[in-house]
Amino acid sequence: LSPKRTEAFSDGVFAVAITLLVFNLAMQGVPAHLATALRDHWPAYVAYAVSFLTIGIIWVNHHQFVDHLHRVDRPLLYLNLVFLMWVAAIPFPTGLLADYLQAGHDQSVAAAVYGIDMTLMGASFGIMWLYAAGPGRLLTVANRAALRSFLLRFTAGAPVYGVAILVAIVDARVSLALYALLAIYYAAFIRAPEEARPGRSG
Amino acid sequence: LSPKRTEAFSDGVFAVAITLLVFNLAMQGVPAHLATALRDHWPAYVAYAVSFLTIGIIWVNHHQFVDHLHRVDRPLLYLNLVFLMWVAAIPFPTGLLADYLQAGHDQSVAAAVYGIDMTLMGASFGIMWLYAAGPGRLLTVANRAALRSFLLRFTAGAPVYGVAILVAIVDARVSLALYALLAIYYAAFIRAPEEARPGRSG
Amino acid sequence: LSPKRTEAFSDGVFAVAITLLVFNLAMQGVPAHLATALRDHWPAYVAYAVSFLTIGIIWVNHHQFVDHLHRVDRPLLYLNLVFLMWVAAIPFPTGLLADYLQAGHDQSVAAAVYGIDMTLMGASFGIMWLYAAGPGRLLTVANRAALRSFLLRFTAGAPVYGVAILVAIVDARVSLALYALLAIYYAAFIRAPEEARPGRSG
Amino acid sequence: LSPKRTEAFSDGVFAVAITLLVFNLAMQGVPAHLATALRDHWPAYVAYAVSFLTIGIIWVNHHQFVDHLHRVDRPLLYLNLVFLMWVAAIPFPTGLLADYLQAGHDQSVAAAVYGIDMTLMGASFGIMWLYAAGPGRLLTVANRAALRSFLLRFTAGAPVYGVAILVAIVDARVSLALYALLAIYYAAFIRAPEEARPGRSG
Repeated sequence: LSPKRTEAFSDGVFAVAITLLVFNLAMQGVPAHLATALRDHWPAYVAYAVSFLTIGIIWVNHHQFVDHLHRVDRPLLYLNLVFLMWVAAIPFPTGLLADYLQAGHDQSVAAAVYGIDMTLMGASFGIMWLYAAGPGRLLTVANRAALRSFLLRFTAGAPVYGVAILVAIVDARVSLALYALLAIYYAAFIRAPEEARPGRSG
Repeated sequence: LSPKRTEAFSDGVFAVAITLLVFNLAMQGVPAHLATALRDHWPAYVAYAVSFLTIGIIWVNHHQFVDHLHRVDRPLLYLNLVFLMWVAAIPFPTGLLADYLQAGHDQSVAAAVYGIDMTLMGASFGIMWLYAAGPGRLLTVANRAALRSFLLRFTAGAPVYGVAILVAIVDARVSLALYALLAIYYAAFIRAPEEARPGRSG
Repeated sequence: LSPKRTEAFSDGVFAVAITLLVFNLAMQGVPAHLATALRDHWPAYVAYAVSFLTIGIIWVNHHQFVDHLHRVDRPLLYLNLVFLMWVAAIPFPTGLLADYLQAGHDQSVAAAVYGIDMTLMGASFGIMWLYAAGPGRLLTVANRAALRSFLLRFTAGAPVYGVAILVAIVDARVSLALYALLAIYYAAFIRAPEEARPGRSG
Repeated sequence: LSPKRTEAFSDGVFAVAITLLVFNLAMQGVPAHLATALRDHWPAYVAYAVSFLTIGIIWVNHHQFVDHLHRVDRPLLYLNLVFLMWVAAIPFPTGLLADYLQAGHDQSVAAAVYGIDMTLMGASFGIMWLYAAGPGRLLTVANRAALRSFLLRFTAGAPVYGVAILVAIVDARVSLALYALLAIYYAAFIRAPEEARPGRSG
């Protein structure tokens, strides 16, 4: 199996998962006072935006990863499948977070579940990188230095996810803000690896 | 990241979002008198058709945009992600508009939300064009003149969206008709830029 | 816009629409006697199978159509969009037919709505063929004869859809059987045009 | 129709079906005690993981199959469509299994339905292989030996599915465990055919 094909399938999962988030925007039934209902529905919009941007940024990161591969072996394929399993699940904790922030109880549980999915996804992604960087030599060799700094900055986000899960116990809205900040961090942080790599993806 | 890859991901989001609109056609439960229920359900069909054609026409416009790019940089990628966030959200205001036109109350709020999503999507698209046309020189140079007339006609639609949002206060059905007319306007208006550009996409 | 790109977008809509049919298999809530509930649920399985095969066969036909094109112009793009609008809607009448065959009332209305969507889809497809075969010369010239016989056999299915809609008044199950037969007819009937055309798609 | 195109459409169905599984994670309404509700919801997570990995592994197997084809004929196209019909249906028995394991009654029926879908999917896949290996010579000739061993190991899984369906009568959780083991078996078992085949997919 070529990297290109793995990428096409992964892209399909990303595109469907990101678009399914719209179901979390829908309200239960047809509320009598729409303006009020829409205002109280704010957690749904914030959760939609945070998850949409997060999946979008993961997609960019994943592409960079696949761009670095010169071939794909069986174990990587299954590591990628496990990674996609956490990505495709994102609409579930997104819905929980939106629902419970609006319901006004158990927000901390919902925010923690959100963070756990993000952490598992991040861990799966990190394991893929480490596996590909290992003796199997799936990665193109010239990028070792850029890769190491990439992995360092990538891993730096992990404890913040841990903090966001703990913060959820106190205030789930602060957790949500941290998840948004992490999305922005990952959007900014991925800039370097590509610039360090000459040509090919153009 | 190449324009081609960005396009593939965007196409995925377009295809899923346009097909998810079908959920807005479904009726609550299994109504006792189907013929009557189907007749009263007309706003769902109109909203489906308007949103389907709108997303389809945006897709054509977006393709033209990507065709004009010779490369994609990081900021553009994120501008595109924000743009797709409004596109993927379209099934939500479409459902609101259908539900509230049928419910017979708060139609104006629903029609305004629809117009706001359209306006935000249009604004994001315009910002992408302006960014790509700027000093970053992401656009192929030969098309500057066609581009300027394109952007003028594109921006000309914006105030009509504003009018449609205001008209929603009086009659949401007139808003919906304006949204349909705007889709037709954008379908007609995009003809020139392609014809002005020689070769390449064939 | 190239035929290839139009095809990719159309394929996305086909793939999503065909997979969304699974929602029509789901039962309301968690029935107390699953074995009985599953048995009474048979119209959902039949409707799923008929719609799945119908969309799959349309996909094959559509590919053949796009294979015959050497270029795509603006009007064709919009005719294709209207065609896809009826394709993407198929899960709606499929759900109606399944629900009302099981409910035991208004089946004829549901079966007629199903037939109307199929007829509009078929008509849109026929119009695309006629437009592409017209003076715009979007079709590769060598296939004129194969095309004419193709269109004849294609149009021959149309009155049967009309009959199926009328038969729905008497017995919706007979209509459903006719829709299944039409799918088989279209699966068999498309064989010739491809064989008449040498090379290219291989 | 080329193998490449059939593959693209099939990939779309795989990607959408695998991502739609997330709907089975959602809980009914907004439970009062989220932590308890999430704990009792465990069958949904297990069913999600088993079905996700199963679809992912089928996707890998399907790719290998298409890689072995040098051309696609009409009957194969329809055999593939029937195969995809069982794949796209997987979210339905997945939801049944999750719901009834949690409800605590009729689990055996739900687990049997799951196994039946898996068996029909496997049978369709086997028929495709046999058809392609037949006198139509759709398969590249060099792989005959690898193919035979592939088919043997493939067929070896079939009786285990039968056992899992029977075991469902006693304990549906054991069935679910068997389905998970079968996914792992198929993930391991497909390794050889690719290694036996030189080049091409890279």
